[in-house]
Amino acid sequence: MASQVKRKKEQPVILITNDDGITAPGIRNLVAAVKDLGKIVVVAPDKPQSGMGHAITIGHPLRLHKQTIFDGVEAYSCTGTPVDCVKLAVDKVLHRKPDLCLSGINHGANHSINVIYSGTMSAAVEAAIESIPSVGFSLLDYSIEADFTAAREYVHEITKRMLQKPMDKHLVLNVNIPAVSSALIKGIKICRQAYAKYEEDFIERTDPHGRKYFWLTGAFINKDKGRDTDVWALEHNYVSVVPVQFDLTNYVLKSKLEKQWKL
Amino acid sequence: MASQVKRKKEQPVILITNDDGITAPGIRNLVAAVKDLGKIVVVAPDKPQSGMGHAITIGHPLRLHKQTIFDGVEAYSCTGTPVDCVKLAVDKVLHRKPDLCLSGINHGANHSINVIYSGTMSAAVEAAIESIPSVGFSLLDYSIEADFTAAREYVHEITKRMLQKPMDKHLVLNVNIPAVSSALIKGIKICRQAYAKYEEDFIERTDPHGRKYFWLTGAFINKDKGRDTDVWALEHNYVSVVPVQFDLTNYVLKSKLEKQWKL
Repeated sequence: MASQVKRKKEQPVILITNDDGITAPGIRNLVAAVKDLGKIVVVAPDKPQSGMGHAITIGHPLRLHKQTIFDGVEAYSCTGTPVDCVKLAVDKVLHRKPDLCLSGINHGANHSINVIYSGTMSAAVEAAIESIPSVGFSLLDYSIEADFTAAREYVHEITKRMLQKPMDKHLVLNVNIPAVSSALIKGIKICRQAYAKYEEDFIERTDPHGRKYFWLTGAFINKDKGRDTDVWALEHNYVSVVPVQFDLTNYVLKSKLEKQWKL
Repeated sequence: MASQVKRKKEQPVILITNDDGITAPGIRNLVAAVKDLGKIVVVAPDKPQSGMGHAITIGHPLRLHKQTIFDGVEAYSCTGTPVDCVKLAVDKVLHRKPDLCLSGINHGANHSINVIYSGTMSAAVEAAIESIPSVGFSLLDYSIEADFTAAREYVHEITKRMLQKPMDKHLVLNVNIPAVSSALIKGIKICRQAYAKYEEDFIERTDPHGRKYFWLTGAFINKDKGRDTDVWALEHNYVSVVPVQFDLTNYVLKSKLEKQWKL
């Protein structure tokens, strides 16, 4: 009995968030996938926050509302951004740093440059800034009816690896999972972020009052022919894993600039 | 005469934006500082967008409104985020890539980890993703009555350097200017981003209906003792210049992970 109590006490605390909102199937699948690996606490946005990047709420206050949609799991919806959720969870819900932060499972890809626009990934990066190892998970399927079966398997596998051998308190992984059945997935590949981006295009329309408005759209272009990128891995049915950093210094251009500017 | 016409034709096109909104003194000072260096076009948010990070607007359309507040300079306010402003400016206002994108002058510091939350810097980074060299400028003074005299001098100097010797189409600089008089500024220093961050704290209040709400606050903590950081430079009255990257791959942890996970 004593050992069981001890084991329970030692359970790692796992904070879960996302950017599709607390009612998204992706976050329910994430909770289900890792429920046996620790004590789960969910703090997630009360509405979709895709494309919010690393936005934080400065100009107005935030609220938390207790939720019961995750069977037996402590959960709160938050009126802020994904990054707000992480900050508020650590400071006002957990009152401590969790052992791990998981974000997702995002409905849609967050490979290549998407990492920079993604609320899912920004929440994970925020955790890493706060010295909490973290993972953002994304499935390459936007549908609300997406099949998360294979994703759940790899989420469990990667989360287990993160807990078994904690590597670095600032480690944050960007994990993307191809939208194919488990049998077709070839395994996990550690990658670099592809230099691929959206060639922006806005659709121009005119409202009933004769005034113009613009919808963001754009085609995804991969200019990176490397076989070590996340885009390549996903195209070849691998689960891509990119370790992400928040030191944005470009050290190569820093050296060049020091020479050229001769200060 | 001919050479003058030629000179005019060859004027570089400079796109200007910010995150404090189109009516902020900072952006008027930026326009004034570089007006003689090229053809200026302003596309800036119609309201304050501080802390918006790399957020983009997906769920609703955007609008542009012509403005006349910059004497003789083509200008539009945009209903979106700073990153939206850059995308929309390139695609629907300029119909070409500008030669340079400038963002700011921000009211308040964007050194160290602030680069990741800053709408000012995210606009500059977005330009660099689109192969437009860019600079984000920030003055270490939040006041609407801040003195931009010294800032204007350094903005002019750095913009001139960027135009004279274009170095890399993805070059994006994070420039912070101390809030002291020009005489006290010791010069420009090329730096790395300090590992400094906010120890988060939320102030908890209760509304008139008895429900809790939270305001983001927090103290700035510099854990980085390096003398090559932006925080060090600013504390010693240098203008700090950090080249920023958008390849977020952490190559050090990538190698470690490849060894540890043995895939």
